Amino acid sequence: MTSSSKFLLHRLVVACYRNLSSHLRCSARPCPEIQPCTAQLRLLSSSPSPNSLSFRSHSCGELRSDHVGEKVTLCGWVQYLRQELFVILRDFSGMTQVVIPQKESAWHLKSTLCDLTVESVIKVTGTVRCRPEGQENKLMPTGEIEILAESVEVYNLCQKLPFEIKDFVKKSEALRMQYRYLDLRSSQMQRNLRLRSQVVMKMREFLCNMHGFVDIETPTLFKRTPGGAKEFVVPSREPGRFYCLPQSPQQFKQLLMVAGIDRYFQIARCYRDEGSKPDRQPEFTQVDIEMSFVEQTGIMSLVEGLLQHSWPAELGPIHLPFNTMTFEEAMRDYGVDKPDTRFAMKLIDLSDIFMSTDVPFLRSALSQPGGYVQAICVPSGVVRTFKEKELSLVQVRENGTLNSPLKKLISPKTTAELLQRTGSRPGDLLLIAAGSLHTRTLLGHLRLQSAELLECCGVSVRDPSVFHFLWVVDFPLFLTSEHEPENLESAHHPFTAPLPEDTHLLYTEPQKVRGQHYDLVLNGCEVGGGSIRIHKASEQRYVLKNILKEDPTLLTHLLEALDSGAPPHGGIALGLDRLLSIMVASQSIRDVIAFPKSFRGHDLMSSAPDLISEEELKSYHISVIWPME
Amino acid sequence: MTSSSKFLLHRLVVACYRNLSSHLRCSARPCPEIQPCTAQLRLLSSSPSPNSLSFRSHSCGELRSDHVGEKVTLCGWVQYLRQELFVILRDFSGMTQVVIPQKESAWHLKSTLCDLTVESVIKVTGTVRCRPEGQENKLMPTGEIEILAESVEVYNLCQKLPFEIKDFVKKSEALRMQYRYLDLRSSQMQRNLRLRSQVVMKMREFLCNMHGFVDIETPTLFKRTPGGAKEFVVPSREPGRFYCLPQSPQQFKQLLMVAGIDRYFQIARCYRDEGSKPDRQPEFTQVDIEMSFVEQTGIMSLVEGLLQHSWPAELGPIHLPFNTMTFEEAMRDYGVDKPDTRFAMKLIDLSDIFMSTDVPFLRSALSQPGGYVQAICVPSGVVRTFKEKELSLVQVRENGTLNSPLKKLISPKTTAELLQRTGSRPGDLLLIAAGSLHTRTLLGHLRLQSAELLECCGVSVRDPSVFHFLWVVDFPLFLTSEHEPENLESAHHPFTAPLPEDTHLLYTEPQKVRGQHYDLVLNGCEVGGGSIRIHKASEQRYVLKNILKEDPTLLTHLLEALDSGAPPHGGIALGLDRLLSIMVASQSIRDVIAFPKSFRGHDLMSSAPDLISEEELKSYHISVIWPME
Repeated sequence: MTSSSKFLLHRLVVACYRNLSSHLRCSARPCPEIQPCTAQLRLLSSSPSPNSLSFRSHSCGELRSDHVGEKVTLCGWVQYLRQELFVILRDFSGMTQVVIPQKESAWHLKSTLCDLTVESVIKVTGTVRCRPEGQENKLMPTGEIEILAESVEVYNLCQKLPFEIKDFVKKSEALRMQYRYLDLRSSQMQRNLRLRSQVVMKMREFLCNMHGFVDIETPTLFKRTPGGAKEFVVPSREPGRFYCLPQSPQQFKQLLMVAGIDRYFQIARCYRDEGSKPDRQPEFTQVDIEMSFVEQTGIMSLVEGLLQHSWPAELGPIHLPFNTMTFEEAMRDYGVDKPDTRFAMKLIDLSDIFMSTDVPFLRSALSQPGGYVQAICVPSGVVRTFKEKELSLVQVRENGTLNSPLKKLISPKTTAELLQRTGSRPGDLLLIAAGSLHTRTLLGHLRLQSAELLECCGVSVRDPSVFHFLWVVDFPLFLTSEHEPENLESAHHPFTAPLPEDTHLLYTEPQKVRGQHYDLVLNGCEVGGGSIRIHKASEQRYVLKNILKEDPTLLTHLLEALDSGAPPHGGIALGLDRLLSIMVASQSIRDVIAFPKSFRGHDLMSSAPDLISEEELKSYHISVIWPME
Repeated sequence: MTSSSKFLLHRLVVACYRNLSSHLRCSARPCPEIQPCTAQLRLLSSSPSPNSLSFRSHSCGELRSDHVGEKVTLCGWVQYLRQELFVILRDFSGMTQVVIPQKESAWHLKSTLCDLTVESVIKVTGTVRCRPEGQENKLMPTGEIEILAESVEVYNLCQKLPFEIKDFVKKSEALRMQYRYLDLRSSQMQRNLRLRSQVVMKMREFLCNMHGFVDIETPTLFKRTPGGAKEFVVPSREPGRFYCLPQSPQQFKQLLMVAGIDRYFQIARCYRDEGSKPDRQPEFTQVDIEMSFVEQTGIMSLVEGLLQHSWPAELGPIHLPFNTMTFEEAMRDYGVDKPDTRFAMKLIDLSDIFMSTDVPFLRSALSQPGGYVQAICVPSGVVRTFKEKELSLVQVRENGTLNSPLKKLISPKTTAELLQRTGSRPGDLLLIAAGSLHTRTLLGHLRLQSAELLECCGVSVRDPSVFHFLWVVDFPLFLTSEHEPENLESAHHPFTAPLPEDTHLLYTEPQKVRGQHYDLVLNGCEVGGGSIRIHKASEQRYVLKNILKEDPTLLTHLLEALDSGAPPHGGIALGLDRLLSIMVASQSIRDVIAFPKSFRGHDLMSSAPDLISEEELKSYHISVIWPME
């Protein structure tokens, strides 16, 4: 079927339906004895397209020289007006050049088109023709053709805009947020939102159609969880009683496993009241997954398959399985639990080399229990200065000698060992740190800063087109509490099961227990985390009460549920916003969210959150505590 | 590939992955130079199933005589224990009979199985065999076979339960809600939630894959809307400033059209704080749709196609196009704007028959401007009494005379006309009402009550297997305000566009304007509503300011958006919970929601909403106003 006949058919269908509809309306036969007249709708379904049921016959991005001679109708926004000769029309799919007729008899049409303003919305009908030879635009997908306008309908004349909708026009972040509906017209934001929709659709197909997962919506008006300091509260109409907006559907997904749902997923809205943290949003989205009768490797394989299936083709393939690293290895080699493995510059242990050193800070560090000397070697010495305590910079000269305050203190033998161990070459910079475990974290930070500095200086360190997925596993189950060092707290959450081989340590040395927790890291960002959960009430009660010293009554419903036939289960949550922002190579998750909040949690477009009168607050049984002057 | 070889392959795959994973863990090579070993995952993807990656080889509902001789592993809940001979194992997909081995050498296995309690969770491995002749169970899909147990693993022994998980065991609504995770194990709730997931998936495929819609998440932390008395408020960390949970994404979807998204949809969580209305939920879900460059018939066709595509096959086909009725016709013939067209008993106008009557209440009604006499004819006179003012009951006797207090007041000629007009037959009951427009509503109620009463008496009125979709169109755009009768208010919302032919009346007789609004009615329930929106800022401003007397500054961002190039657009929202509850023939939307709230908005499982200490509320800058004793 040619496009034009498709268009005619489509028009016919709508016309046909309209007639039928008005017929029904006139005859008003409410007990429907009419034979179902499905023919026209079937036609629609059999040629579905983004132009179905619309005023347009084609979108602005789809016409090519194949269409020459066809009569078409386009709808869109005026991108450019050129010398009373052309209108460039834009929609979500691209742009098309419309030729303003110059002949005398078309003066009315010409004057309507010439009176348009940029960003006005119109419908144009005309005939597709080849552009005159030499005027083709190879950079424009529709650059071979143009439309000779025959009629126009102006839907809206655009008034003055706060900024132009041109990709090359830079706008401030605040202006973009205030006029988000204009900012979203940019080709970048159009692409980001459409890609997000497609990726999510693919994920749903994989989970729902291919692996038997059930998409279940869980409540967002819930009960406060123990220690829920970051939860939003919602006053109910009962005095003093509040709902909370949950940080994740964690409890519900576990209860769904107890309920025998077997495989649950949800693209879940989550809430976290964190004030002004950079690139955090008070509401965000996670791909939430839970399965019964599965172990860690099963969830990991599932997620790998999920990402491979939903990965945008234009980004190139991703390879399975992803690499796996233990938490200990990640900390040892990268000084961080979410290593960016796109580049080396790993942490190198030098403790044995400096075992009998005279350098005071190295000797002092190594004399402590658990003391380290570690280094990273920054290839080519462009990195400037790092002003950090207990950190020594050693520049390797062209002649193989060292340029460093340490130089005189290190023997030639040690120097040789140092160069050999770190694989240093002339021009490299060695960053040496000594101290306790935290030196790893320090060097981990420096490694990333060095990479950024090198990249700023034009050295290629990380390939921006590469996606390095990595599983980090075998996390400690408990950490020493920052505020009360004598207490343990969950490294992730209190529902994570211990590694089977570590379970006995729960009752003897809980600080040594590793959990069945796994984090998914992409290019050095944590994009997901999950675990196998405790499925025995007695174990869960022991962890809550005896190890975490929490009040188990707050979780009575969950403990009762575990006692009433809970299957072994586990799951994961992927941070959809972060994952998408890495896919589209954006620094901020705001670029993959249609209407994000500002750093301070404000909606700059509608100015939420907003003041509410004390009178209106009465029905919620609350009043505002205004701060003292 | 046979099932058993599939199972073996699957085991192999997991084993293979595990080895690889531990290899990676040991060798810890974080810069991944390893060649991607994708073979095993590919295998998984090419045979996807609800058993992939799981401990089980088959689900409890899938084994048939074809599987006889295969070694299988099932996981599930103990449904029944029978005479130390059988365990009936249940999962989401059905049940399978497991035979407890009786031979001496299997005493350990036997004692483990016999010690199980109902609802315990186990894994059983065994061999499929035919049931002995005569012992097949034709009512059970797996009734041809049984599994001879060879090994068992007990994951959890179930403790005492508040109620049995048997479909025939009736539980109170409160108990079901308190132990929702047990209630969800029922076959009915398993079916409902799985059907919901499938219907939604089909809808997404239709919109996203077939018609170019973009799935976009809009914020739920938003600004209070004008007159938002039913909105939940959420205190922010700034004193006195509150977010609101929106009743629908109405403003956002219109802004997305201004943003050039062209076609938007979202399965959107919505919030309405209505206190204790029956069968309402404080959070509910709508299928939210908006399109640009479309008119009313386009949206209607789209929704018809959407429902046809996503309609569960087991409910039988639905026929397109749906019937259409104007608001006027619906009120005239059914006395309600959401007629149940599965049965007749329509309202019949008798005004002309009684024009010169002597019956006082009829005469009095007809002497008023806009006075009516209307009736419904209830076939067979089983309906008892209706004690309503200004309502007359007329029973048609077998001999064609009337049994009614009115009898003596009505002439034989009028009686004949009455019987003829209403098509009454002996045994029928006529309900006659006279008065102003509101008599329609009265008779509309009585029509539905009569149908219910007849059905209670065993008369078949409405076929429960039939689904009657109906569009109601041409609603009035404005209604007289109940509280301030001199003012007009929006019949639906202030963004609905007038019918083109009525637009001029906006400026002269706004009360006569009909809107481009359409409601979708299914079996007498409103399951959706939408409209073509106003896309010109001047018209929108006029409606807000001059007709509705509202402060347009609260909607500045929307008015500014309309001024910056808004396309013609319209959309609809379908009530997903209600639609699903009709599909599964449930009286309550709670039966299609995993974790619903009670009538009073309580989560009886976790006991939300809950008390929060004044101390904790300080960080939200609010305090509770406790009611006076």
